[in-house]
Amino acid sequence: MTEGANGGNPATTEPTKPGTVYLVGSGPGDPELLTVKAARLIDEADVVLHDKLPGPEILGRIPEAKREDVGKRAGGEWTPQEYTNRRLVELAEEGLAVVRLKGGDPFVFGRGGEEAEHLAAHGIPFEVVPGVTSAIAGPAVAGIPVTHRDHASSVSFVTGHEDPTKEESAVEWDALAATGGTIVVLMGVGKLPEYVAELRRAGLDGDVPAALVERATWPDMHVATGTLETIVDVRDSADISPPAITVIGEVAATRDRVIDFLMNASEEEGEE
Amino acid sequence: MTEGANGGNPATTEPTKPGTVYLVGSGPGDPELLTVKAARLIDEADVVLHDKLPGPEILGRIPEAKREDVGKRAGGEWTPQEYTNRRLVELAEEGLAVVRLKGGDPFVFGRGGEEAEHLAAHGIPFEVVPGVTSAIAGPAVAGIPVTHRDHASSVSFVTGHEDPTKEESAVEWDALAATGGTIVVLMGVGKLPEYVAELRRAGLDGDVPAALVERATWPDMHVATGTLETIVDVRDSADISPPAITVIGEVAATRDRVIDFLMNASEEEGEE
Repeated sequence: MTEGANGGNPATTEPTKPGTVYLVGSGPGDPELLTVKAARLIDEADVVLHDKLPGPEILGRIPEAKREDVGKRAGGEWTPQEYTNRRLVELAEEGLAVVRLKGGDPFVFGRGGEEAEHLAAHGIPFEVVPGVTSAIAGPAVAGIPVTHRDHASSVSFVTGHEDPTKEESAVEWDALAATGGTIVVLMGVGKLPEYVAELRRAGLDGDVPAALVERATWPDMHVATGTLETIVDVRDSADISPPAITVIGEVAATRDRVIDFLMNASEEEGEE
Repeated sequence: MTEGANGGNPATTEPTKPGTVYLVGSGPGDPELLTVKAARLIDEADVVLHDKLPGPEILGRIPEAKREDVGKRAGGEWTPQEYTNRRLVELAEEGLAVVRLKGGDPFVFGRGGEEAEHLAAHGIPFEVVPGVTSAIAGPAVAGIPVTHRDHASSVSFVTGHEDPTKEESAVEWDALAATGGTIVVLMGVGKLPEYVAELRRAGLDGDVPAALVERATWPDMHVATGTLETIVDVRDSADISPPAITVIGEVAATRDRVIDFLMNASEEEGEE
């Protein structure tokens, strides 16, 4: 970071304020894909509330003394969202500068919206610090542009892991298929067979390209490619497991055209 | 940036290599929303090819001597994509470390995919460095989460400014309306009346919330909100002009619920 590139603008480099919550995206996992602002706020914060999604490389760099894990607890249970909401208010009311660190972007399937509303309802000032979403960065570092002038006029992001309290899927797979654009599914490795079947029923061809990107930008990133017809078998034989992104659409074939010159791609490549 | 947060991992902090092109996202415009990696690569590069989209704050911090503008030329014409493609190959073949800097993320409506394919076809090694997309960050800093557990199970991004050589719009507004999720339109201020009409015809209610975010994260950011029914008038009376993002969907109403506690929001607020 040069002086020129991040210094000097008081509007964008205000130090953290006591009693304030910063909803911060940590990006897909590579510490260099933190924003300059996220890195600074982590550094300045009194306390950082996080789950496991920011990944080991980023979490490992936050001093233990100011980390507070609100992700999976011993015994495999998740900390209820209500606890996290309450804890954010509590810490801010103690006058601390609180960073709520979330994997990717805080407002993309990260419940950042709910936390923002809870904070506002309790009179806690907050700021949103967007991050690089793995929904875009995952495919990108694998050589897959989510939009392309020739192949995709739109891109849609959905989650494969919906709120279990919902009675039926709120995702309109028919409509998504009909957009003709790229479909990116987050947290959707487990339910891959279900939504691939939905998309086939909705009329997408078996030869539509598809790709899986596991642990995007992490040192052990793993990419596997196929088609709607083959992708479930590809997942199984390549042993792709969460966290992973699924990309469906013509753009997924771009990887094959660029892979020989995509830097760092070869060592990231697993068996396909 | 602390030593702890970006140092020490050789895999992610490799210095720029001669003869290589880095397709780098600059984020929405706030220099602190550059990634740590983008800031470093801009610093290390021999030459930075850019257009106007990274915004004045970021461009102003790159030394003149290594900037090369491939955006709008004198006379108002655009540099053809073919020129940019050729120039990237030429500079890399001279042995330079080349940063191709793009607003937002290089692979979201930024022709980064085409540039990657051109580089690969000409044997030029390249790397993709994802950025914070304004499609997500624009709404976020205005207090609008693009997804929400209660209001939006999907989010779709489209461009309102399509390739003019296309005979008809490739965007399936009907299908996008039928997803039931959030719709974010980039570069769509000018054609707002056309696609609002398309979405109404596709069955979206006039009272669906909508918001416009002009120059997101820039010092003169400007936000205006309304509904599908009112948003065209809102645009005109608030004098919203490009570059701006349009957000359509229930999530757009979140802003009203959080605005009083959203830091920096009040001074960014224009007339609404």
